[in-house]
Amino acid sequence: MKLYDCHTAPSPRRVRIFLAEKDIELENVEVDLSSGEQFSPAFRELNPDCVVPVLELDDGRRITEVTAICHYLDETFPAPPLFGTTPASRARALEWNAKVEQQGLSAAADLFRNTARGLQGHALPGPDGYEQIPELAERGRQRVIAFLRRLEEQLRHEQYVAGDEFTIADITAMVLVDFAAWSKIEVPTDSGNLKRWYEAVSSRPSARA
Amino acid sequence: MKLYDCHTAPSPRRVRIFLAEKDIELENVEVDLSSGEQFSPAFRELNPDCVVPVLELDDGRRITEVTAICHYLDETFPAPPLFGTTPASRARALEWNAKVEQQGLSAAADLFRNTARGLQGHALPGPDGYEQIPELAERGRQRVIAFLRRLEEQLRHEQYVAGDEFTIADITAMVLVDFAAWSKIEVPTDSGNLKRWYEAVSSRPSARA
Repeated sequence: MKLYDCHTAPSPRRVRIFLAEKDIELENVEVDLSSGEQFSPAFRELNPDCVVPVLELDDGRRITEVTAICHYLDETFPAPPLFGTTPASRARALEWNAKVEQQGLSAAADLFRNTARGLQGHALPGPDGYEQIPELAERGRQRVIAFLRRLEEQLRHEQYVAGDEFTIADITAMVLVDFAAWSKIEVPTDSGNLKRWYEAVSSRPSARA
Repeated sequence: MKLYDCHTAPSPRRVRIFLAEKDIELENVEVDLSSGEQFSPAFRELNPDCVVPVLELDDGRRITEVTAICHYLDETFPAPPLFGTTPASRARALEWNAKVEQQGLSAAADLFRNTARGLQGHALPGPDGYEQIPELAERGRQRVIAFLRRLEEQLRHEQYVAGDEFTIADITAMVLVDFAAWSKIEVPTDSGNLKRWYEAVSSRPSARA
C-alpha cells in the first residue's frame, strides 16, 4: 500500500496520525501542493478530485477520502480499534467524526481558504477555481468558535470526543484545533475540559505525525 | 428504536430509504421543522445540534448523524448489506457517500438555504442564526452542476455510484438529485449514464420513502 500525502496539510495528517496509532508504516509519496502538483495530469489520473490523501492498495485500487481510508485501515489492521468496538460505539465514533468535519473542519477551511492570499481563485479544494468570499471567512470564524464550545460541553461529560475510548473522532478534533490555530483561533481560556483533552491527545506520540 | 424524522426534509429521507431497503419499520416521530420544533427545549435535549434525523436506541442512547445512523442499522440488520461486503467495498461505499455529501449535498444546501425566503437568518441548520450569503448560493449552483457531471463520469464506468452493488452512496446521490430539483437543477440532458442510473434507483420501492 502507498499513501499519497502532503506533510503540511491537515487532511492527510489525519491519516498519518491514524497510522501512527496503529504503528503501521506505509510507502509515502509526497505531493507538492504548494506548486500545484495535485492539478497535474498524473495526479488527476490518481484522483480526479485533486486532493490528498489517497491510499493506493496493492492491486492498484485507490481510496480518496480520509474517513473511508481510515475505515479500511481499521478493518485491515484491527489493533488498536480506532472506530469503537461495538455497533453503538462505532456509530458514535462515526457520528462525532462527522460532526467535527461538518461543523468544525469545514468552518476552519472556510475561514482559512477564504482569507489566504495564496488561495485566491482556489477558495475550495479541487479542480474548479472558486473566488474567495469574505463573508464566508467571517462566518467560518464564528462557527469554529461555536464548535469549540460544543466540544467543551461534550468533553465535560466524556473523556474522549466519542466516549470512553480514543477514536478517529479525537484525531479529527485534534487536527481541527491545530488547523484553527493557523487562523489564530485558540482554545478559549475558560474551556478547561477541552484543554485537558487537547493536552492528553496532543502528547500522544502519534500527534507528531 | 425510534426515529425522529421530518417527512419533507432530505436528510431524514436518506434514513427512511435505508430502512425501506432493509424492510424495517421503526416507531416514527415527526418533528415539525416548519414551525421550528427543532429549536424547542425538548428537542434540544434530544439533539443540541437541532437537526433531524435522530435515532433513539432502546436504552435511550441517541445517534444524531445520517451516515452513523445507517452504519448502526447496517450492523444491526445486515441483510441486504448497504455498505458493501468487503473492507475495500465498504471503503468505496463510505468514500462515495462522503463525496456526494461534501461535493453534492452541501453545495445543494448552500444554494437552497441561501436563497429560500423562509430561511433568512437561518442559512445553516442548527441553533445559531447565520445570514444568507448570495455569492454562496451562486457558488452552490455551479458546484452542484459540476458534481452531477462528476457522477455522470463515474456512472459511465460503474453500474452504481460505488461499484457493482447498490449502497448507501446511491441513496445519498438519489436524494441529492431530488434536492437539487428544488432549486430547478435537473440532470443535464446529455448525461445518459446519470439518467439511466437515476431511473433505476428512483423506481425501487424504497424511493417512495
